[in-house]
Amino acid sequence: VRGVQRLRTPALLLDRDVLAANLERMRRHTERLGVGLRPHLKTAKSVDVATMAVGHNGPITVSTLAEAEHFAAHGFTDIVYAVGITPAKLPAAAALRRRGIDLQVILDSVEMAGVAAGAAEHLGGSLAVWIEVDVDGLRSGIPPDSPALLEVAGVLGAAPGVRLAGVLSHGGGSYRCRGVDALAAFAESERAGVVAAAEAIRAAGIDCPGVSMGSSPGVAAARSLDGITEVRPGVYMFQDLFQAGLGVCDLDDIAVSVLTSVIGRSRDGLVLDAGGLALSLDRSTAALPDDSGFGRVCDASGRLLPGWTVERVTQEHGIVTSSGDPIGSTQTGTLLRVLPNHACMTAAAHDRYHVLSGGRVVAQWPRCNGW
Amino acid sequence: VRGVQRLRTPALLLDRDVLAANLERMRRHTERLGVGLRPHLKTAKSVDVATMAVGHNGPITVSTLAEAEHFAAHGFTDIVYAVGITPAKLPAAAALRRRGIDLQVILDSVEMAGVAAGAAEHLGGSLAVWIEVDVDGLRSGIPPDSPALLEVAGVLGAAPGVRLAGVLSHGGGSYRCRGVDALAAFAESERAGVVAAAEAIRAAGIDCPGVSMGSSPGVAAARSLDGITEVRPGVYMFQDLFQAGLGVCDLDDIAVSVLTSVIGRSRDGLVLDAGGLALSLDRSTAALPDDSGFGRVCDASGRLLPGWTVERVTQEHGIVTSSGDPIGSTQTGTLLRVLPNHACMTAAAHDRYHVLSGGRVVAQWPRCNGW
Repeated sequence: VRGVQRLRTPALLLDRDVLAANLERMRRHTERLGVGLRPHLKTAKSVDVATMAVGHNGPITVSTLAEAEHFAAHGFTDIVYAVGITPAKLPAAAALRRRGIDLQVILDSVEMAGVAAGAAEHLGGSLAVWIEVDVDGLRSGIPPDSPALLEVAGVLGAAPGVRLAGVLSHGGGSYRCRGVDALAAFAESERAGVVAAAEAIRAAGIDCPGVSMGSSPGVAAARSLDGITEVRPGVYMFQDLFQAGLGVCDLDDIAVSVLTSVIGRSRDGLVLDAGGLALSLDRSTAALPDDSGFGRVCDASGRLLPGWTVERVTQEHGIVTSSGDPIGSTQTGTLLRVLPNHACMTAAAHDRYHVLSGGRVVAQWPRCNGW
Repeated sequence: VRGVQRLRTPALLLDRDVLAANLERMRRHTERLGVGLRPHLKTAKSVDVATMAVGHNGPITVSTLAEAEHFAAHGFTDIVYAVGITPAKLPAAAALRRRGIDLQVILDSVEMAGVAAGAAEHLGGSLAVWIEVDVDGLRSGIPPDSPALLEVAGVLGAAPGVRLAGVLSHGGGSYRCRGVDALAAFAESERAGVVAAAEAIRAAGIDCPGVSMGSSPGVAAARSLDGITEVRPGVYMFQDLFQAGLGVCDLDDIAVSVLTSVIGRSRDGLVLDAGGLALSLDRSTAALPDDSGFGRVCDASGRLLPGWTVERVTQEHGIVTSSGDPIGSTQTGTLLRVLPNHACMTAAAHDRYHVLSGGRVVAQWPRCNGW
């Protein structure tokens, strides 16, 4: 790849051609299923990537107020902030709304619904709220059959200055599935759960226009999304070793990697200048039949070196061992690329992407890290 | 703590009073042992912290070229860059030296010694190089009894424009010790190894002024450092749950924590707005008898809530469960603090410290992240 030799390592690479193909595949998939696509920018945290995914002002999802403010400043006006809102964060959300941004928040308790309802008028007369629905018992949300669901919907539906945008689930349980059939079954249970929540609210006479579900692997494997209005996948843009292990992509679909230099040899392998910070400490692939350590190793052109994995890391060092091709006499300074276990976590250590296209470095795109 | 209510969560807190006590304790310890202190700024990545540790221009250690350039720009002129240098990084190191910064690099191979020797004149006539010595077989360095040690020393000692600064070890094996006696024994083996390397080089008639060893727990537990000229501890400044588990500090000595808000309840606990990004995915405490999950939980004033731990995380969510005090009816928006497993990794997700002293927020200090 022309131009990578000039980058200071470790550096985050993004293959724009692979990214474009991943975006197109999900676009076609959601069109076929007849649902809207509101991609989650928690993975990419990039205006350039968001624009490729949904155009200059498409609907997006974010995971932090910092992202909400960043994308709003760059022209995005339809934003779901999909981490439970707190009383102290309502003013920042309302401030965006007063600037004409349709910033939508989520909550999952009678307590917080009451706070939002009470604050809406005081904050300028307008909040848009999704109710988070719990489909797998793993994190947040109200179970579809809980009496609290209708109570929350009632509070929000009756509050002046509050628009109930709909119900929203995040099926993190998809990450515990193995293989596309298991994922499809999980996606169906998520779909049924969040649709049931919407129908319960509607049956109580309360308007519930939106029905949103999330998680890249579930959405990618879903065979029907009847009753869903929009989906919020995120990591599908970049893919990673864990997604490949789940069966929803190939290794060739992974758009991000960490460019690294060999800095020497350990007793058992090569030492890289990419360690726990540059690669992240994510070990999600430990739960897969084919454990990738802290990442799989490619040459500088992106060709996989069979059996080479980052076996252990310290803050700025990665140790590569090989169960395949011998590591041999790799020279100090040799450039390699490491495919990430979990793209969201690996990308978060870097403040920018070095963008590749057609075999060369073509751009730098900034990321919006932090909170 | 006055002022924390105004911080957007998650946010990184640094207790300056605890930090000052940690710094003073290490200063006294190294004075008693008669060795120089060249603290490693890879943990703090902060000019303000470095200044507290060694004054406005004391000797420091860094882990990235970005840190080297940042500290140089803020007046530090005696800097060891303690991650193996590569051919492509030599020009940046030489550029700092031409600006009057005594930037010292490290290497551990005949190959790289030859490159450095060949490049020194071309790069402006001056490089300062430490030879990395391997004392535990875990990462980089040349074993003290390897013939390569004298070969590298010979190449560097004879090269015009190269100053051999000394030998340097990083006893990462200290992290595998349990208890101060085991740490003291490990520190003694590290000391003996790196001193043996220096003596072998001197016996060959080559000047080897510096003998440097690293790692906070080893240095903290060391009972004698005969033959060592300087030490490079880093995490001792902040301490963390892993260091406490090793026995080298108490929980009260931990100077950093992540301020977080309760955003709701899961089926089994509380949900925080601090997840794998804000806390890091470090699970080093899993190897200790007392596993801290992804961190231990305190109230907003820093008082430990017995038995409360962050049991699991996703990108922006942490789930707190309790084996002690019941979690009860903690309100949404309640501020808590999470003590880190590994301060270096947790701090790296944040671009600044919110500094506490005397029970209130007194400053913001920036960090130098990235490469």
